[in-house]
Amino acid sequence: MARRTQAQLAETRQALIASGKQLFSDKGFARTQVAEIAQNAGVGMSAFYGQFEDKSQLFLHIINEVFTELHSGVMQVRRGVNLQMPLESIMATQQIYVLIFETLMKHKEITLSVFRSGFSAIPGLEVLYWQICDAVAAALSQDYQHAESAGLLKIGSHRDMSDAMIGMVQHLGYRMVLQGTPTPIEAAKMCTQYTIGSLIMSIPKDKLQHLMPLWAAIPADVI
Amino acid sequence: MARRTQAQLAETRQALIASGKQLFSDKGFARTQVAEIAQNAGVGMSAFYGQFEDKSQLFLHIINEVFTELHSGVMQVRRGVNLQMPLESIMATQQIYVLIFETLMKHKEITLSVFRSGFSAIPGLEVLYWQICDAVAAALSQDYQHAESAGLLKIGSHRDMSDAMIGMVQHLGYRMVLQGTPTPIEAAKMCTQYTIGSLIMSIPKDKLQHLMPLWAAIPADVI
Repeated sequence: MARRTQAQLAETRQALIASGKQLFSDKGFARTQVAEIAQNAGVGMSAFYGQFEDKSQLFLHIINEVFTELHSGVMQVRRGVNLQMPLESIMATQQIYVLIFETLMKHKEITLSVFRSGFSAIPGLEVLYWQICDAVAAALSQDYQHAESAGLLKIGSHRDMSDAMIGMVQHLGYRMVLQGTPTPIEAAKMCTQYTIGSLIMSIPKDKLQHLMPLWAAIPADVI
Repeated sequence: MARRTQAQLAETRQALIASGKQLFSDKGFARTQVAEIAQNAGVGMSAFYGQFEDKSQLFLHIINEVFTELHSGVMQVRRGVNLQMPLESIMATQQIYVLIFETLMKHKEITLSVFRSGFSAIPGLEVLYWQICDAVAAALSQDYQHAESAGLLKIGSHRDMSDAMIGMVQHLGYRMVLQGTPTPIEAAKMCTQYTIGSLIMSIPKDKLQHLMPLWAAIPADVI
């Protein structure tokens, strides 16, 4: 057999990732076989094991990829927003939640697999899960710091604040992929309502007089 | 062997449940063996299988019992509260969250087992999980209905509202049992902040003028 070039190996790897993404999204982790992933990618089993240690490793790679894709989508929304404009920020928050719930829905079976397989069934999943939570918390913490330095908010624990958000997304997302309700938009609205509500609760009491006009300005279809 | 009386069987069952609760709470689901549960209860393996089909069935029974215990604790807090008094309701909300997080912490390894084993590893767990969510949602929905009939709040989906809460509790609870932070009190404060915030967001805009005095009345150590 001819020695494979770097380019060919990279191509094989990409085909396996695409194949895994499709099969895991369609059937979930447990019901997808390595042989199927390889066949669907047009390669043999040995090509699979040349790239990934096992099915779990590919699954983790894909979760990471989905998260990275989502993260860059979120960044794109944020770049377009003037965070100094409260109403713009609220609309952007909701847009970001929509993006998150749509991504969970797009990879419905992957989302379900994470819940159903549990964190111990897939080696490395619990560690990756908390790495993702850490990344989300770090990004949110920057926003909180800006708002705190500007005297707009006084948030106790940044980490608890962002973990509460992650929890909402998870649980609403779990029901969404299981039952089809809430829709991504409904779930996003509820999360926006909680998020903005909790931020309102973090406004120093001497800044409260600014709140009413902002509130009155929120269009009825936002939250 | 003498035929066991009903009373003896009931006693055996209680001993097995107490033993399982202790072992699952100390070591989690996966690392607890049926033989150990029986020994710790002072009975033989056959007595175990006379009462429960397998380890999973006992585990589900215990989760159900913990939830029932928690539920009656919550009801006790609620009975002492005048829900017409907003400040009293806020304090009660926080007290209920403290109770929930303390219960999760008390049964730390059971909490961890639920996350780590996943919903498919323990037969019946996913069904029980959603039954508990349904029960919580139904109880909260009654409160929302009262507040809506009184014209105090206008909540879109009761179910989404309560699922967001369940999600926060879960995710903050998961980190609490894993890392020891947040403490039950810190987690409860964060959840109270989100809950009250989301309810504030549900106040009809023409009722907003009542909000400021309420807000100013919240003591700094509550949320």
